[in-house]
Amino acid sequence: MIDPRIADSFARQSMMTSLQARLIEVGAGRCVIHAPLLAGFQQQHGAAHAGVAFTLGDSAAGYAALSLMPEGQEVMTVEMKINLLSPAMGDMLHAVGEVVRAGRRLTIVRAEVVALTGETRKNVALLQGTMIGV
Amino acid sequence: MIDPRIADSFARQSMMTSLQARLIEVGAGRCVIHAPLLAGFQQQHGAAHAGVAFTLGDSAAGYAALSLMPEGQEVMTVEMKINLLSPAMGDMLHAVGEVVRAGRRLTIVRAEVVALTGETRKNVALLQGTMIGV
Amino acid sequence: MIDPRIADSFARQSMMTSLQARLIEVGAGRCVIHAPLLAGFQQQHGAAHAGVAFTLGDSAAGYAALSLMPEGQEVMTVEMKINLLSPAMGDMLHAVGEVVRAGRRLTIVRAEVVALTGETRKNVALLQGTMIGV
Amino acid sequence: MIDPRIADSFARQSMMTSLQARLIEVGAGRCVIHAPLLAGFQQQHGAAHAGVAFTLGDSAAGYAALSLMPEGQEVMTVEMKINLLSPAMGDMLHAVGEVVRAGRRLTIVRAEVVALTGETRKNVALLQGTMIGV
Repeated sequence: MIDPRIADSFARQSMMTSLQARLIEVGAGRCVIHAPLLAGFQQQHGAAHAGVAFTLGDSAAGYAALSLMPEGQEVMTVEMKINLLSPAMGDMLHAVGEVVRAGRRLTIVRAEVVALTGETRKNVALLQGTMIGV
Repeated sequence: MIDPRIADSFARQSMMTSLQARLIEVGAGRCVIHAPLLAGFQQQHGAAHAGVAFTLGDSAAGYAALSLMPEGQEVMTVEMKINLLSPAMGDMLHAVGEVVRAGRRLTIVRAEVVALTGETRKNVALLQGTMIGV
Repeated sequence: MIDPRIADSFARQSMMTSLQARLIEVGAGRCVIHAPLLAGFQQQHGAAHAGVAFTLGDSAAGYAALSLMPEGQEVMTVEMKINLLSPAMGDMLHAVGEVVRAGRRLTIVRAEVVALTGETRKNVALLQGTMIGV
Repeated sequence: MIDPRIADSFARQSMMTSLQARLIEVGAGRCVIHAPLLAGFQQQHGAAHAGVAFTLGDSAAGYAALSLMPEGQEVMTVEMKINLLSPAMGDMLHAVGEVVRAGRRLTIVRAEVVALTGETRKNVALLQGTMIGV
């Protein structure tokens, strides 16, 4: 079962609702989010906009960080770097975030975003950044 | 008047339409995009999701790069780093992208995203990255 | 005159001594460091190693941040992104660091590194990152 | 045995010689570099300067990329992001670079830098960036 405070936080993000994103797994410094590739979030070539991969990767990384923070804290992104590996095309995007180092205040995170077309997986983006508890 | 190939490319990005973003200015290695802060793109605290600032900054930077590329080229993001300076709250977001160095294949770009509440401006995000002509 | 606590901190960095770097200016969220291009710090093509531009830009950014921190604090780099614009060749490298936003704990910084050959200036690197007071 | 073109390139980097760095392993998109923590490359608190971790991680990532490039190519860093996880103190630094995605022109890379004090290992830095064949 998913930690209720993270499920609640996720449910309050209207951005996740607009992207039809679902929180699949979260806990112990790891978080998985799935979302379909929607017609309304594309760039000019018909792939998902880089901002979609960023948004899903950033959220997965953020909730991975929050899963290790004390009760009552919220998480915010300090900074995030994304390398785009291939255009985000297909049926679904899977974002997996994980904690690299949980410090007292800052948490270093990483995320991968993969596009699925049927059974075929293609790496779309790699993210590395910093989260802060507030 | 805005370069028609950039106006066309922008118009084909359904992501820009969904964000109600408007292309305000583009040319000579510079691009300005405005968008309202919409209810459907928020994080859990009621500010715009970091992904919105990323998306607008990335697009402004991308079109700044494209404005210096030869006719017939398209632009893609290789990588982008964003530092978040304050929560994106208010009425509007203004993203300004500019080219730092236009190379033969790679273009180094920068973007700033500012939130406006009435006349008050607040810096929201600073981006630095690499675009490629394809 | 340069703030003595920053001059002292700089003088304690043996890395700066090895690079023959000099603290030229510091104050009000800005710092300038100059260093010659030395034979012992090159990559395989005879330019300065990317690590030299990184080191000078990172230090200039760090002291720019420290100049706005309360007495008694020290500064550490949380993260730094560097885009390399052209090979670092010539006589001297000038690094200019500046504060973009000084927060209560985190300071967002930027730096530029320029190579000088006689009177000719060439942009070598652009950095953007986060400093923390400790 | 280490690919001679990579051993040669490494040997021509005076920066690696100054850092007393040794090329331990390279091949198939992976490269390991070891270096002692030297007195002449410290920041103001007696740890290695962030520029040392950057330099070793960047070089390990670069040679990992080069190991997958065609004969006759050289490698240059386009951009690199480093998150610093803890101060670089101890006896040795080990940098491990690996290729995430080798494209036709651009190669996405990652590197980790670890400090060793006797048998104790501590993660020092995590890097993610882009290399180009020239």
